[in-house]
This record gives sequence, structure tokens and C-alpha cells, in this order.
Amino acid sequence: MSELISPNQTAVWLRARDNFLIITHRRPDGDTLGCAGALAQSLLEQGKTAYICENPEATPRYKRFVEDYIAPDDYIAEHIIAVDTATEDLFPKTAEKYKGSVALCIDHHRSNTLYAESVCLNADRASCGEIIFEILIALTGSISSVTAERLYVALSTDTGCFSFGNTTANTLYVASFLVESGASNRDLNKALFRTKSHSRIKIESMITSNLEYSFDDKVAISVITREMMEISGADEDDIDDIAALPSSIEGVCIGITIRELTSPQDCKISVRTRVPYDAQAICAKFGGGGHKMAAGCSIKKNVDEVKQMLTEVLTEIFR
Amino acid sequence: MSELISPNQTAVWLRARDNFLIITHRRPDGDTLGCAGALAQSLLEQGKTAYICENPEATPRYKRFVEDYIAPDDYIAEHIIAVDTATEDLFPKTAEKYKGSVALCIDHHRSNTLYAESVCLNADRASCGEIIFEILIALTGSISSVTAERLYVALSTDTGCFSFGNTTANTLYVASFLVESGASNRDLNKALFRTKSHSRIKIESMITSNLEYSFDDKVAISVITREMMEISGADEDDIDDIAALPSSIEGVCIGITIRELTSPQDCKISVRTRVPYDAQAICAKFGGGGHKMAAGCSIKKNVDEVKQMLTEVLTEIFR
Repeated sequence: MSELISPNQTAVWLRARDNFLIITHRRPDGDTLGCAGALAQSLLEQGKTAYICENPEATPRYKRFVEDYIAPDDYIAEHIIAVDTATEDLFPKTAEKYKGSVALCIDHHRSNTLYAESVCLNADRASCGEIIFEILIALTGSISSVTAERLYVALSTDTGCFSFGNTTANTLYVASFLVESGASNRDLNKALFRTKSHSRIKIESMITSNLEYSFDDKVAISVITREMMEISGADEDDIDDIAALPSSIEGVCIGITIRELTSPQDCKISVRTRVPYDAQAICAKFGGGGHKMAAGCSIKKNVDEVKQMLTEVLTEIFR
Repeated sequence: MSELISPNQTAVWLRARDNFLIITHRRPDGDTLGCAGALAQSLLEQGKTAYICENPEATPRYKRFVEDYIAPDDYIAEHIIAVDTATEDLFPKTAEKYKGSVALCIDHHRSNTLYAESVCLNADRASCGEIIFEILIALTGSISSVTAERLYVALSTDTGCFSFGNTTANTLYVASFLVESGASNRDLNKALFRTKSHSRIKIESMITSNLEYSFDDKVAISVITREMMEISGADEDDIDDIAALPSSIEGVCIGITIRELTSPQDCKISVRTRVPYDAQAICAKFGGGGHKMAAGCSIKKNVDEVKQMLTEVLTEIFR
């Protein structure tokens, strides 16, 4: 049975303990890694011992914000903390042994399964970073520039640099505080949001020149084949948020990205919708899930077959 | 001789007067139009009479934030106020008759020529909207949701939705206050930053598939011909910030956009640089100007000749 605790109570909890290990989620993003880095840094500044459980899927884009805190092989933690991680199923391989023994979970996902002993949860926050901020302010009264940088990564990446619909007055207030505390938003924004790799430029160009519109241009489908990935030289970092592209086009209500995976008979589908269309309902037809405006699924068919199957579902919707 | 006044003094100045006309700058952006809309709205809420001098170059993207306040033909103002306008040369045609008689100028451009009787200037602000905010808070103590929306447009467009290097802690703090006051950042961001027209997608695709790299990929040149504008159907709104594209590519230090204007012998050149390269110095060679990281010039030659001329200057720089 989990106990829900406030940020203030979480600060009290942390103050009373030592020797922490911090877990991040699979396919780690800037929020989970930024939170882990900020929490570890701030606990170290308090004279405590804190490490991050290595996440083998961390990409170069975010690795530098956690690499100073990776736990050595022989580290034995007293308290396991998970950040931004809704369920134990999302633990990376390296953290599987901690399932069932997480002491504290700090999260902003409504879908959190309350698997930890104590849970500090606020589903109204755009990023988990905002909750960590509140905890650290309660714990220490201030934010160092290094901690601020990591929290800025968390906030800005989960909100598309404050442009997504989840951005609140609180997000912007905390961001302001972090910049005031020394987070170099100029350099971070340049690296995270204002730099495109050559491969990204190439694959974007391929995608945009082959967009397929249907249903009175209300639907736009983009396809990313293995060949396109090869020709452009794009990796996972390069296509980080590319599923948002078709739905960003004027008048498009359902934006779909079909990505060919390791085999041509294996496609990952990302769906982004505008009100009143339900991305989750579309993906559920194929065993997938997600949120109302953003969902995903996998279909073990080739691209053309996937398009055909999606068109049938869409015909139903637009009838 | 101009008198420099603080935001507080500007509030006192406004409180003591009535019957205003607000001037915006040529090729109006979200900052000048958002500021004009916010100032007019807030003065109206105070029971005063305030109109905006119509700006014939206002594009559909921003027009809706000022159209409720456009001065009727027979309006005779007592006090002329210019917002976000550094020199009288930047007055639109409709405001030329007010040259030499501007009572107040509110601005954030270091290059302001102090042409107004009183000037409220703060060159450390990313947007003029932040200064208007300070004035309105001093004047009224709060910001209505309609005023907040217009100010949000000003702040967000001048900072690329808080991603440009000019974004400060103050920008984010004011943005937070505006969202708290009722600015629907979700809808505004969607419209201003997260929606691309079909034409924009088309012309971006054309541009990115024809980028030219040189000088060890430190320079990227994009070309926008009249033919590309025609084929894509793009208008000025569609290519609003497209000059930022080449300089956003990894490793590129000098990003250049050459745009063919009404005649093939007339090109507009935009240059964006990273430290230590000086965009202004490059453009000055051709009689242009701007800032260190962003500048522009016009050359009355065709695209190929322009490239040749730029290459000579660049060869000099990289020698």
C-alpha cells in the first residue's frame, strides 16, 4: 500500500535518509534524466551519497546530464528512488532487480501505478522536473546553477521549450527561477531545440516531400522507411520528436507517422490528433495505447498494408 | 532633446493624459503589434481613448490582435505613442505625418534614436512587451486576459517561444504572469509556433533539399527563388523566420539565406552567425546592417552573382 506524500513531506523524507539510488525510465527522455541529474546533484551538495542507476538506453543528447552520477558496480543503496517513471514495467534492464523495493517515486503521470512505498505525485505538472524543483526548494532553500541546468533540461524538453499545450504558468515560473539561478537557457536551447543534425535535415526533407494527405487534407501520413534512415544516416536522437510533424500542418486533425522497424513486416505507428479526434481510440484498435492527443501502436505488417488498415479505421471515423 | 523615463514614470505620464494614437513599425512583427494591442486595450479598460494607427503591412497572423483598435479616419489624437520602433524611418506610410511629433516612445532597441519627447527604453529586455507589462502593472495593478493575450504574443514571438538566446529570467517570469492572468498560451503557441501551412511545408522541403554547404560545412546557404515561392504558394507569413534555418544546422557557423525579390536582379540576403563570426560585418560589406548574430543586406544582382560575392567575403573570413 502506497502512501501519497507532498513535496514538503518528500523533502523531510530525504533529509532524514542517506545513500540513495535513482532510477530513470526506459527510452529515457530529458525529463527523467534531467530529474535524476538534478536530484543526485542536489543531494550531493547536501553532503549525502546519491547515485543514478545507469540507463543503457540514454542517448548522447542527454547523457552528459547524468554521467557524473552513475552508480559504481559495487554500490549498495539504502533507498531506491524512481523519477518520472509511471510503472515498474518501465524500469530499464539494469533496474529490474529493484522491482518491488522502491522506497520513493516522484512522478507527474496520472497513470502512475503507485508501486513505491511513498509517492510524490502531481499530474497537473507538465514535467516531473517541476515537482523535483518544489522538493529541492523545500529541502535546501535554493538551487545551484548545476542543479538548475539539469532541471531546465527536464522542464524544457517535456514542454517542447514551453510551446506544448501542457505548459502552465507554473512551468514558466519555475523556468524563470532556474534561469535566474544560473541555468544557461541560451546554450541549452541552442543544443536541445535550435540545432538540427545534417541527418535530421535530410530525413525531414525526405519526409516532407512525400507526405500523403487524405480525407479532405484532415489526415496527413508520413512514412519513415529503413532505407530513408540509412540514406540520411539518422539515428534515434535525430528523429526524436518527428512524429509531431504531420499533425503540425495547418488543417490536419490526425497526423500519422509510420516507421518501418528492423523488419519490413514490423511497423511502429505514432498518431497525433486534435480535438475531437482520439489518438488513443485509433491505436487501441491495434493493441496500442497512450493519451487522447498522442498515442502509438505496433503492427506486424509492411508499410502499404499498415496504410490500408489505418485507412479502414479512418474511413469509419470520418463517415 | 529626449527625456528618458522609467516604466513607473511612464505610467504616471499615461495616467495624466488621454486621447492616444499608437504607432507600430514597418514590416510589423508580433512584438510591435502585440504591444500596440495590449497598450490600447489596457488604456480602454482605464476609461481612456486610445487607437492604433493602421499598419498596412500587418499580416493575417497578427492582424487579429490589433484590428479592434484601428483609428477611424477622422480621429484626432492628442498624444502620439510609438512602440517597439527604433527610428522614425521605420514608421509605416500611414504614420509619416507624425514624424517629429511623437510624445512617447516605448522600446527595447539599443539603436533607438531618441526621436520622441519622452522615451521609456530598456535594451536588456528581449521584447518590448516586457516593458509594456511593467508599465501596465504600474498603471493598473493587474493585467486582463485580453491584454495578457496580446502581451504574450509580443513576448513569445520576439523570443521564438522562449527558445532564442535573448530570453531572460524576466521574459519567463512575465510569461508566467500572463498565462496566470488568462493568456491561452496553448492556443497561441499552436497558432504561432506549432502550425505550418501546406505552403510552408512545401517550401521548407525545397529549401532543405537544396542546401549548399561550403568551407568545411561551416557555411550553409539556402536560396529562395521567386519560382519556389510561386510553386509552393508561400507568402510572407509562411517564410516568417525561415532565415534561421541554415544556421540551425549542426556545425554551421554562418547561415545565409538568399531571397530573390521582385526582379531576378534584386536579392535580399539574411545572415545568421555563431560566435565568433560577425553577421553585421559581413552585411556591412554590402551596405546592410543589423546585430552581431543576425543581419541583412540587399544586393542588386542575380542569385549566382550574389553567391559569388558572398563567397569572396567568406574566403577572406576563413583564410
